[in-house]
Amino acid sequence: MVTQPKSKHIPRATIQRLATYVQVLENFARDDVEVISSNPLAEACGVNGSQVRKDLAYFGEFGIRGVGYHVTSLIAAITSALGVDREWRMALIGVGNLGKAILNHGEFRARGFNIVGIFDCDPFKIGEIVHGLEVHCTKDLKGMVAELNIEIGIITTPPERAQRAAQHLMDAGLISILNFAPARIKVPERVHVEYVDFFHHLYALAFNHTQARY
Amino acid sequence: MVTQPKSKHIPRATIQRLATYVQVLENFARDDVEVISSNPLAEACGVNGSQVRKDLAYFGEFGIRGVGYHVTSLIAAITSALGVDREWRMALIGVGNLGKAILNHGEFRARGFNIVGIFDCDPFKIGEIVHGLEVHCTKDLKGMVAELNIEIGIITTPPERAQRAAQHLMDAGLISILNFAPARIKVPERVHVEYVDFFHHLYALAFNHTQARY
Repeated sequence: MVTQPKSKHIPRATIQRLATYVQVLENFARDDVEVISSNPLAEACGVNGSQVRKDLAYFGEFGIRGVGYHVTSLIAAITSALGVDREWRMALIGVGNLGKAILNHGEFRARGFNIVGIFDCDPFKIGEIVHGLEVHCTKDLKGMVAELNIEIGIITTPPERAQRAAQHLMDAGLISILNFAPARIKVPERVHVEYVDFFHHLYALAFNHTQARY
Repeated sequence: MVTQPKSKHIPRATIQRLATYVQVLENFARDDVEVISSNPLAEACGVNGSQVRKDLAYFGEFGIRGVGYHVTSLIAAITSALGVDREWRMALIGVGNLGKAILNHGEFRARGFNIVGIFDCDPFKIGEIVHGLEVHCTKDLKGMVAELNIEIGIITTPPERAQRAAQHLMDAGLISILNFAPARIKVPERVHVEYVDFFHHLYALAFNHTQARY
């Protein structure tokens, strides 16, 4: 099975759908479904069958004509193609409520996204043990990234500290940032920031809800 | 100032950007910036100036030619147009770590998104007080939605319980759901589900990180 991407230019929307396919395929696997065709997979993902077939075609040939996809093989193929079938070691800056919730969120570790270093600039938090990890001073991040093999930085600070946190991550040589703080951060082009923004979603819900009543 | 949407068909991407504009404008307001033109606003949001002008045009005429936008008026106009300048009362199902973090996340309340009822199906959690709210049995949701004036449901259950939680929300008459559980849920067309999916973002980071190294 070919799992190397045919093209580097995979649209962002495709990657998002691939993450959904994995999630839905894992549900099928939990229910002991062994083989699935593109239409029920598509339906469970809220897209159409031709979209599924098109998205999977980015990574080569999957599935058996007239039969469908082997569920666990397809999960393995997608995660391998995306590069998420290995461990990713992450640093988290901002050990407040949100940071602690992220540390507690079993799904991260279950999918190989391991937080191995946690940092805060609050002297009262430094030295505290949270989920088995000692809170370090954010200034120590730079020295610890190589040692801990960290590749992704997570920001869970208040909004007004997000830019400084991003600077610490970049100074430590990191180019991949997941930002939970409700603030935009400025980064050079080589740095990739993903925003997890609850309010985008709440605003969309509220707007649609308001419209739906007219 | 016209704040009623000119059209009901505002693209999803526009609403997301409007949420970002509000966030960035609030940063400017914190820094005591009173007036801003579209280009610096656009730059801080990571889009271009014509995009900002186009997005704002959905809601009528903003800004003063040659001067720019009055920051606090623009925040008020966007939030009013989106319908998020009022209180939204929400129920949360799943009082685990993630649910507790959401309850703890001061930003929600600060923006008028108030969680007023919390529910769980674990008998050991029912009756517990979390952030001043008593955990109720999920079966009691239906009877409490009208009483508490709840309009939005939040799902923070484990993935295998997300569909059941959605069913409880729909049975209670809710049509707007924010789903944090890493699972797709099936709903009729009139129900609007927003997915907050950390793994979409982590997968995108991991994939780009892997590509960046070649």
